[in-house]
Amino acid sequence: MPTFVQVLDFVGTFAFAISGIRLASAKRFDWFGAYVVGFVTAIGGGTIRDLLLDVTPGWMTDPIYLICTGLALLWVILFGKYLIHLHNTFFIFDSIGLALFTVVGVGKSLAVGYPFWVAIIMGSITGAAGGVIRDVFINEIPLIFRKEIYAMACVVGGTCYWLCDSLGMQSYACQVMAGTTVFIVRILAVKFKICLPTLSGHGGEKEER
Amino acid sequence: MPTFVQVLDFVGTFAFAISGIRLASAKRFDWFGAYVVGFVTAIGGGTIRDLLLDVTPGWMTDPIYLICTGLALLWVILFGKYLIHLHNTFFIFDSIGLALFTVVGVGKSLAVGYPFWVAIIMGSITGAAGGVIRDVFINEIPLIFRKEIYAMACVVGGTCYWLCDSLGMQSYACQVMAGTTVFIVRILAVKFKICLPTLSGHGGEKEER
Amino acid sequence: MPTFVQVLDFVGTFAFAISGIRLASAKRFDWFGAYVVGFVTAIGGGTIRDLLLDVTPGWMTDPIYLICTGLALLWVILFGKYLIHLHNTFFIFDSIGLALFTVVGVGKSLAVGYPFWVAIIMGSITGAAGGVIRDVFINEIPLIFRKEIYAMACVVGGTCYWLCDSLGMQSYACQVMAGTTVFIVRILAVKFKICLPTLSGHGGEKEER
Repeated sequence: MPTFVQVLDFVGTFAFAISGIRLASAKRFDWFGAYVVGFVTAIGGGTIRDLLLDVTPGWMTDPIYLICTGLALLWVILFGKYLIHLHNTFFIFDSIGLALFTVVGVGKSLAVGYPFWVAIIMGSITGAAGGVIRDVFINEIPLIFRKEIYAMACVVGGTCYWLCDSLGMQSYACQVMAGTTVFIVRILAVKFKICLPTLSGHGGEKEER
Repeated sequence: MPTFVQVLDFVGTFAFAISGIRLASAKRFDWFGAYVVGFVTAIGGGTIRDLLLDVTPGWMTDPIYLICTGLALLWVILFGKYLIHLHNTFFIFDSIGLALFTVVGVGKSLAVGYPFWVAIIMGSITGAAGGVIRDVFINEIPLIFRKEIYAMACVVGGTCYWLCDSLGMQSYACQVMAGTTVFIVRILAVKFKICLPTLSGHGGEKEER
Repeated sequence: MPTFVQVLDFVGTFAFAISGIRLASAKRFDWFGAYVVGFVTAIGGGTIRDLLLDVTPGWMTDPIYLICTGLALLWVILFGKYLIHLHNTFFIFDSIGLALFTVVGVGKSLAVGYPFWVAIIMGSITGAAGGVIRDVFINEIPLIFRKEIYAMACVVGGTCYWLCDSLGMQSYACQVMAGTTVFIVRILAVKFKICLPTLSGHGGEKEER
């Protein structure tokens, strides 16, 4: 029987894959292209983290991520037209995925002996880099660099993990606290449209390219 | 004297490099840019595979790939205007490259102990990922996600490898069968314009970005 | 007290980060996005090199690169409007970074036992690949493939390293000679607008995509 964390991991992977498949389909990708973009959205962040940490990426040892992306593709093919009504549901799923992936990334980096500042970066890469690859593949400027707080939620959650650990809390408690923080920051950012300031008008436009 | 496989490898690398150099030149890249795009088209898929498998990429141990790309650049500089008449020849070369790279990718993954489902993915990455990097560099949506069956031919060929192996065939016979399958699927796909269905109209367009 | 090379490394990282932050701000990235693009511009080349060489990327063992990028972001936020007047200063800094990163890349590759032809490629990747990732992130065709000689300066410098080493010079002297060569080639290329020829009109435009 799957554990609670495995269920969350499946939900997060499913939500990330759906986000890749939908954006790919808007660009008229075929089924295969949509599957690949969905898969890379789901596992891209973890794969970059694992290459940097020099460990074997998780999806190469367990076919569950391939299967989960296949189910996500099937879902979009069958129920795609109704997905628009489930916007809020998928936003919640996506935020669960972001929270869980961040916590997994921080934990995995600490487990191989890196200090907290590296682990926070790895947690953020795990949560957010898949979306960057997705946007590069569909030839758009990565969304997370411009819209509501997204990757910053990972950084805040990772920092929360650090604080809890410094206070002597158990690793399980640190993970719950960090994940909850990522989730809440992300929900609040979208609900209240909290964005970071931009740098426009700082000389970049006039830079001779 | 080079073996038959080495000759095929050279032909495939040459064809992949030509495809990168021509698309780069259409975007007004300079000679250096065209060389880099050609080289990355040829070795990009194998490099990603080797990073994932944690082995040293082949082009770092044998300068033949650099030399082959240099010859491809020279060819385009000297005979570029006549290349358009060789469209079919290069299509055949490109399909040979796709078939060979897929088989090499599957074989290398099995050799380091991965199961077949990983090896099939690695074969597809070896054959198709170089073209994805090429298209990202020239700032286009990757072709393989939208046009006639390309990477799917690698998946079919890899699955054929698996079936042959399951039937107890020698590894050499499996490779010939798999490579032939990739080649034939790709040729048929282009000849009869066989595309996978797309997902347009499934809610992605209306997604708020 | 930092050594002379550490000061140069800081200057180069700062200049590369500024270049990423300014181009990101021209695309209306938020502060976080600009920071990430600046950081990736500065450390992207070295990270790809280290993944290929199978060693741990430098920025994962020393937080100086994170701090340096943070200072670069602060600088652009505070003084961005005046940066346009410092165009020449930043061009000099950027060229110092290019020279130093190339020399570091060549040296690190030789140290782990690769031959010179691999080391020259790794030096060029260290110097130029960060800018390629930057341009992919801001959804532009990479600048180095089209404008004045940039990555070719790394190749020339790396070749100079090889020649000096072949003549039996000390490794320190080789590095100074190679770095100076990169710097001078780059300065001359921009001052006299030296570009490599392009391949336009060689059949690529008519290629059916």
